Amino acid sequence: MAKMWSGRFSKETDAKMDDFHSSLSFDRRLYKEDIAGSRAHVRMLAKCGIITDQERDLILEGLKKIEKRLDEGALELPPQLEDIHMAVEHYLIQEIGEVGKKLHTARSRNDQVATDLRLYFKKTVLETAQLLVELCQVLLVRAKAETETLLPGYTHLQPAQPISLGHHLLAYYEMFSRDLGRLLDCLARADFSPLGSGALAGVTYPIDREMTAKELGFRAPAANSLDAVSDRDFLVEFLAAASLIMTHLSRLSEELVLWATPAFGFVELDDAYSTGSSIMPQKKNPDVPELVRGKTGRVFGSLIGLLTVLKGLPLAYNKDLQEDKEAFFDAADNLKASLSIFIPLLETMGFNRERMFAACAEGYLNATDVADYLAKKGLPFREAHRIVGEVVRQATFSGKKLEDLTLEEWQEFSDLFEADILQVVEIRACLEARQSYGGTAPRRVREAVQEAEERIRQIKEKLQDFLRR
Amino acid sequence: MAKMWSGRFSKETDAKMDDFHSSLSFDRRLYKEDIAGSRAHVRMLAKCGIITDQERDLILEGLKKIEKRLDEGALELPPQLEDIHMAVEHYLIQEIGEVGKKLHTARSRNDQVATDLRLYFKKTVLETAQLLVELCQVLLVRAKAETETLLPGYTHLQPAQPISLGHHLLAYYEMFSRDLGRLLDCLARADFSPLGSGALAGVTYPIDREMTAKELGFRAPAANSLDAVSDRDFLVEFLAAASLIMTHLSRLSEELVLWATPAFGFVELDDAYSTGSSIMPQKKNPDVPELVRGKTGRVFGSLIGLLTVLKGLPLAYNKDLQEDKEAFFDAADNLKASLSIFIPLLETMGFNRERMFAACAEGYLNATDVADYLAKKGLPFREAHRIVGEVVRQATFSGKKLEDLTLEEWQEFSDLFEADILQVVEIRACLEARQSYGGTAPRRVREAVQEAEERIRQIKEKLQDFLRR
Amino acid sequence: MAKMWSGRFSKETDAKMDDFHSSLSFDRRLYKEDIAGSRAHVRMLAKCGIITDQERDLILEGLKKIEKRLDEGALELPPQLEDIHMAVEHYLIQEIGEVGKKLHTARSRNDQVATDLRLYFKKTVLETAQLLVELCQVLLVRAKAETETLLPGYTHLQPAQPISLGHHLLAYYEMFSRDLGRLLDCLARADFSPLGSGALAGVTYPIDREMTAKELGFRAPAANSLDAVSDRDFLVEFLAAASLIMTHLSRLSEELVLWATPAFGFVELDDAYSTGSSIMPQKKNPDVPELVRGKTGRVFGSLIGLLTVLKGLPLAYNKDLQEDKEAFFDAADNLKASLSIFIPLLETMGFNRERMFAACAEGYLNATDVADYLAKKGLPFREAHRIVGEVVRQATFSGKKLEDLTLEEWQEFSDLFEADILQVVEIRACLEARQSYGGTAPRRVREAVQEAEERIRQIKEKLQDFLRR
Amino acid sequence: MAKMWSGRFSKETDAKMDDFHSSLSFDRRLYKEDIAGSRAHVRMLAKCGIITDQERDLILEGLKKIEKRLDEGALELPPQLEDIHMAVEHYLIQEIGEVGKKLHTARSRNDQVATDLRLYFKKTVLETAQLLVELCQVLLVRAKAETETLLPGYTHLQPAQPISLGHHLLAYYEMFSRDLGRLLDCLARADFSPLGSGALAGVTYPIDREMTAKELGFRAPAANSLDAVSDRDFLVEFLAAASLIMTHLSRLSEELVLWATPAFGFVELDDAYSTGSSIMPQKKNPDVPELVRGKTGRVFGSLIGLLTVLKGLPLAYNKDLQEDKEAFFDAADNLKASLSIFIPLLETMGFNRERMFAACAEGYLNATDVADYLAKKGLPFREAHRIVGEVVRQATFSGKKLEDLTLEEWQEFSDLFEADILQVVEIRACLEARQSYGGTAPRRVREAVQEAEERIRQIKEKLQDFLRR
Repeated sequence: MAKMWSGRFSKETDAKMDDFHSSLSFDRRLYKEDIAGSRAHVRMLAKCGIITDQERDLILEGLKKIEKRLDEGALELPPQLEDIHMAVEHYLIQEIGEVGKKLHTARSRNDQVATDLRLYFKKTVLETAQLLVELCQVLLVRAKAETETLLPGYTHLQPAQPISLGHHLLAYYEMFSRDLGRLLDCLARADFSPLGSGALAGVTYPIDREMTAKELGFRAPAANSLDAVSDRDFLVEFLAAASLIMTHLSRLSEELVLWATPAFGFVELDDAYSTGSSIMPQKKNPDVPELVRGKTGRVFGSLIGLLTVLKGLPLAYNKDLQEDKEAFFDAADNLKASLSIFIPLLETMGFNRERMFAACAEGYLNATDVADYLAKKGLPFREAHRIVGEVVRQATFSGKKLEDLTLEEWQEFSDLFEADILQVVEIRACLEARQSYGGTAPRRVREAVQEAEERIRQIKEKLQDFLRR
Repeated sequence: MAKMWSGRFSKETDAKMDDFHSSLSFDRRLYKEDIAGSRAHVRMLAKCGIITDQERDLILEGLKKIEKRLDEGALELPPQLEDIHMAVEHYLIQEIGEVGKKLHTARSRNDQVATDLRLYFKKTVLETAQLLVELCQVLLVRAKAETETLLPGYTHLQPAQPISLGHHLLAYYEMFSRDLGRLLDCLARADFSPLGSGALAGVTYPIDREMTAKELGFRAPAANSLDAVSDRDFLVEFLAAASLIMTHLSRLSEELVLWATPAFGFVELDDAYSTGSSIMPQKKNPDVPELVRGKTGRVFGSLIGLLTVLKGLPLAYNKDLQEDKEAFFDAADNLKASLSIFIPLLETMGFNRERMFAACAEGYLNATDVADYLAKKGLPFREAHRIVGEVVRQATFSGKKLEDLTLEEWQEFSDLFEADILQVVEIRACLEARQSYGGTAPRRVREAVQEAEERIRQIKEKLQDFLRR
Repeated sequence: MAKMWSGRFSKETDAKMDDFHSSLSFDRRLYKEDIAGSRAHVRMLAKCGIITDQERDLILEGLKKIEKRLDEGALELPPQLEDIHMAVEHYLIQEIGEVGKKLHTARSRNDQVATDLRLYFKKTVLETAQLLVELCQVLLVRAKAETETLLPGYTHLQPAQPISLGHHLLAYYEMFSRDLGRLLDCLARADFSPLGSGALAGVTYPIDREMTAKELGFRAPAANSLDAVSDRDFLVEFLAAASLIMTHLSRLSEELVLWATPAFGFVELDDAYSTGSSIMPQKKNPDVPELVRGKTGRVFGSLIGLLTVLKGLPLAYNKDLQEDKEAFFDAADNLKASLSIFIPLLETMGFNRERMFAACAEGYLNATDVADYLAKKGLPFREAHRIVGEVVRQATFSGKKLEDLTLEEWQEFSDLFEADILQVVEIRACLEARQSYGGTAPRRVREAVQEAEERIRQIKEKLQDFLRR
Repeated sequence: MAKMWSGRFSKETDAKMDDFHSSLSFDRRLYKEDIAGSRAHVRMLAKCGIITDQERDLILEGLKKIEKRLDEGALELPPQLEDIHMAVEHYLIQEIGEVGKKLHTARSRNDQVATDLRLYFKKTVLETAQLLVELCQVLLVRAKAETETLLPGYTHLQPAQPISLGHHLLAYYEMFSRDLGRLLDCLARADFSPLGSGALAGVTYPIDREMTAKELGFRAPAANSLDAVSDRDFLVEFLAAASLIMTHLSRLSEELVLWATPAFGFVELDDAYSTGSSIMPQKKNPDVPELVRGKTGRVFGSLIGLLTVLKGLPLAYNKDLQEDKEAFFDAADNLKASLSIFIPLLETMGFNRERMFAACAEGYLNATDVADYLAKKGLPFREAHRIVGEVVRQATFSGKKLEDLTLEEWQEFSDLFEADILQVVEIRACLEARQSYGGTAPRRVREAVQEAEERIRQIKEKLQDFLRR
């Protein structure tokens, strides 16, 4: 099959070469965007008098047929067709003859692929954002129901202070909510149409870039043709945002894996989202969070891979850029799959409130409250801290909890202790005491859920705006 | 020196341990932010009645002295002091006695370091943004002056079409302008105060987080205490933005290195920003762009390093997070240094317009215009492309440029060629012909410079808003 | 389809879950290794009296049929079958009934997948090494032929000293030859059989691990069962070696892209390994080196991805490890494809010796020789360097080459210059003068080619040793 | 201060430029290697008659003084001196006058820095290897003492099968032992001297590269001058090996953090290697393993950073390569610090055998043994697995361990169960049963310790060989 660009060549490309440089095996997933771009282009060409209305109609008719056959998987896409752009053009010419050869007027593959990619990109980012919204909503539902549930809060994976399980879940809501902000920013920054930039320098025809930009749902045409054809920043920005989303999922996954191990026993994953062992009959494994934690590495890999591709690349288009697509597709697919599975996983997961409460008794989670108690009586905090350190040390030796100490025992350490210390060290009292804004006291958690619900509502509206275009 | 937290311990830490886990060698650069945070905290404690006004004044007085002595480099900061927070507190107690021990009331190192870091972060991002603005301005000045300068545009590093040097410089303006957008978004997303989150769960005192947030110039207090102390997303977001800025600098650097080599000879770097060889007396090396290109890898390394630190970390604070600072400091320092040196480098660089023009004559940069010529006469573009491929092939064999062909020679390939083809293939005509929006025709470039100047003005205003707070 | 491990579960897995955690879509490529491992395992079980000889024969017969049907693509592999191990076992039981259920005796999927992966790994590393050997041989053939060809040597991409093109090609031979060493080391370190490690702790049957190790071509069984099932170091080591190979290819690619641009014009790629432009009829693009340079990022991504997966993973097997395979497969496929296409590319590439020689005249490549000339006459080198710097400066102003200077002109700079300076500055004399070991003088290059040929012969023998096993 | 290479320049470098491109702030740590290299070089120059013996002696004397003053920190090293090579030469000339200017004869900074770096590299790799040997020895001592200690073995962080704590520790020995192999291979591959390669092409003097290579302890001179000055593969190879070592430390760290949390309670870190909290008086935090786990990211960052630097770099030396040093120094420093602190940490750590044993009772760790029991009685393994799954399920409902079941209860599931099943399910019996090579039975663990001791002895000998050179 002679290449469409072969005029100046005296020899065909080697078959090995066709396999190596062809992108059809992966860019075929852009066919709908490619055809949408061609449709907009051809309408504009006609409106600007570059082709006739009749030519336009013939081409549009042909594109419609090609799209249908691609939908049905009825067209072969061998590597020699190079890429989805050439493939569509090839079948178009086969379908409608010579007039099909006019489609590439005032256009280059460089602006064409950049346009296809942005269209697909916008769709993908919106899908990802919608999954994130769903995940946030599940977190809010579960957080609301667990406002009063006591959980040991950890730092350094050592028991630190008692917290509300709802408060803990809201911490993840915060992370994913920032992620949503990043996706929206990224979307807005990428919302410019490269179509009409030509190979690199613009085109010699009287085209209307506003028209194609509008028809394709872009905010405006991109301002510089050289940049427009060689810019892949939006992919890097998305991959960085995706890396953070995966990082957040990996942190939650780590906790779920910990919480599901018998030593903690805080959660029970639903059987529908767990697996067993081929050899050990007793096993129930938290495969989903483990695999999501693992996929985090893969998304980081795509990010660093694409940054490396771009490093040191002169303007404008270079073939290196062909390596952008698989990095992006793979990361986006894995991110969306991870979000999709986490939504039902979190929905169906059982919390073992008794185990959480029992764990709050271990580890002297109420020690800070005792130090605060002394500080409120006027002792400098550092002194108070020192004394309570001593209390804990002796309690550890005698195997007691702070709740077990009598008033007399307390007073051996400081005569500032009075009868109310016995209430202060109750675990639930410690929870209630953290009334500062953003703190873990249940009323604060309830407020936070409400605020969060409002923020999610606003984000959903913004997504609707994008979708309506 | 006994640690302030040593109450429950029966043994001192090993000296090796002090060296290993101490962060003073690098977090000392946060001392101003640490003291600013303490100042706001102590004022709030007094206002909320947690300490007395007199205690507040004593502490404020003490902090002032410590800051002065740190400014002068008059305080020793050995590793046993652990970190800048403990060091300041240590000297404060040394300075003002027992009352100094009250400073840590209603605060933990976890929210303290998060606050210090965000303050330093905001300052750094603003400085970076200002450097980027300067760089953009230099690009615009030079682009404006080179609107009419002809330069070969390349794709695949092969001559493609003639472009305006101004247009080329504006492509970099576009990249850096997007970078500015990313920095501003990142700044806005990080603009929340962690202070008052305590160790992880909030505090048991009636504090006023709005007050400290406001005094420190934050938009609002952070909404969730667990998240506030363990969130390092803003650093990752910045490192990703920094990686893209360095990527853009690396692309520009690659071009400068190419353009400075005699084979191209398009630019001459100023002697003040070039170096020689220890052995080869003739050498003049473009060290700056080479080194900047190299530093790109370093910034990528910080990004991937921090992402790896965060991967799979359970809530809330873990000591792993201490590894956030050096990654951020090193990347920010190198990024700012790279921008700082690029500004005068670009300002002082000489363009060799003759070499650029001469290079436009090589490589058949006008071939597309001939294909467009035929297409405009009704030939389908693919056909036109094929014919011009043939023309180029024969011209190559006979060692001719397209400008050298006579009308008769043109007509051997197609009788659509008429006398005007001889003008069409003039290089400057090719430049002028790309009148599409975003294209390289000088009038378009002039428009683009104006738009860009306006956008930069708006960005500067936004930066002023942040700075005024 | 009920899972083989579902005994303790009260609910089936969700279909979404099957899709998410199944590895069949990519681990199916291990089917030959999986069946080879089962074959060795079952023979060993019989030999050790754990199953009967008749059972062994039935299973072997069944495995043979399954393999044949897999070869023919005649077996469906839906995600519910989980992985290639379960799939083979499933079809085996379907084929031979109850006795098939004995295959998993004394084995776990954990040691099974580790074994499959190592077998596939060894095959892949050997294939990669053989491609590298071929590439080295092409480099040696071409280097031998270009021993006397003059090329400007560059540092900082500035002309530095004249070198032999053969010498330049040998630098790449050195890199790839080190790469071969890394692959062989990596192969030797991974050459231990995990089979018989069970799920993590060994097995309770009297198995013979030496026997299976030997049959499968491993040097010995792995020494620690926990390590054997959770070790993926060999993949990281390979990905690091692969990253270096790609780095070397990217450096060579960069040079080819430069050399193919008209400003240099040192090489002409064969039409069979070049492509054209969809819009610019004159273009001939070096797609192969560009794409290989781009793929470098992708391989780095796999490396960092897998390192991230492993970071912080407790013993022994965790599902995160399932993410090892695609990272490895993708990197190995792209590496092998890149090597495969570079071999004919280098073989068929044309060198433009005239352009190379002409470029040697630009850039004062002989300046060092003049400084050496003076130093040999007793002037301290630093003085000599200073004087020649001055010569170059003045020659630049007057637009002269050093070859153009007369003896009188030389003597204006120093009276140490005598008539022989006129020969010393001849470019070919400069080449011949670098007679130090490892230097660029043609006789040294010839020696180096011979040494290299001998080293390649030795490496080929080592590869044969591995292949014979 | 005029630059030594300033002959052809008409202007001094800008102060900003000096700061930006100077490497003195970090390459000063190479001063001993730089002087050692100069010493060898100057002896060789004299032996080859390129300088006189008297000149040699003067230079050697001067170098000795410079070294002493650098040892004492008595020499200023401002950025204008550019790098350690220029700084030493500058002070040498200051010290001994004109003859000092002869030191740079037949040498370039390019081969000089490559030589310095390799010398420092070899020293660093040997130090790292020695620390790894120590770490392995500690692991072996502790493994030997814990051969009989029962620990739950985990997969997916779910209890899987009982293992010997010694066996678990040996898994880490295996990893670090492979790491040692990688370091030795890397050392051998880098053991070639670049000295005498000149700027890129060799030198015009009759030098003796064998002599300098030998004096500096290298195996031989590097074979290709272009490669020798631009090769940084050895750093990448080391950084990849370092990344794996850190990965192994991170896995061990993760386990220590888990084991130190009260829910597990398997280890107690020594107070000397733990820290407290500034606010929570009860806290004892495992800072060391957390920080080491965090530093893993940093080392990955250096690896990817350097790979990025090298990607797409043409031959020979480019200034980008200056970015090699800090990446390497930082990774090596952090790696050595991590190993150094882990050695005493592991030595002093207390094991809580009771908690480990108690945990073995949870989680049905003996279920596989029951399946094996049935399989040994002739039931196909898959059937046996299914039955035991059912047993576990019912035992979970009734809150029983398998050890609690009576023979009658067992026989309700299968009449293959006989009285001996009651012994088979004893946890210690499960441990003893895994007698396969590499398995966890104490006698296997004892054998493994012995083998390991022998292997470490051999590695120590190899290190001695390197050190003796």
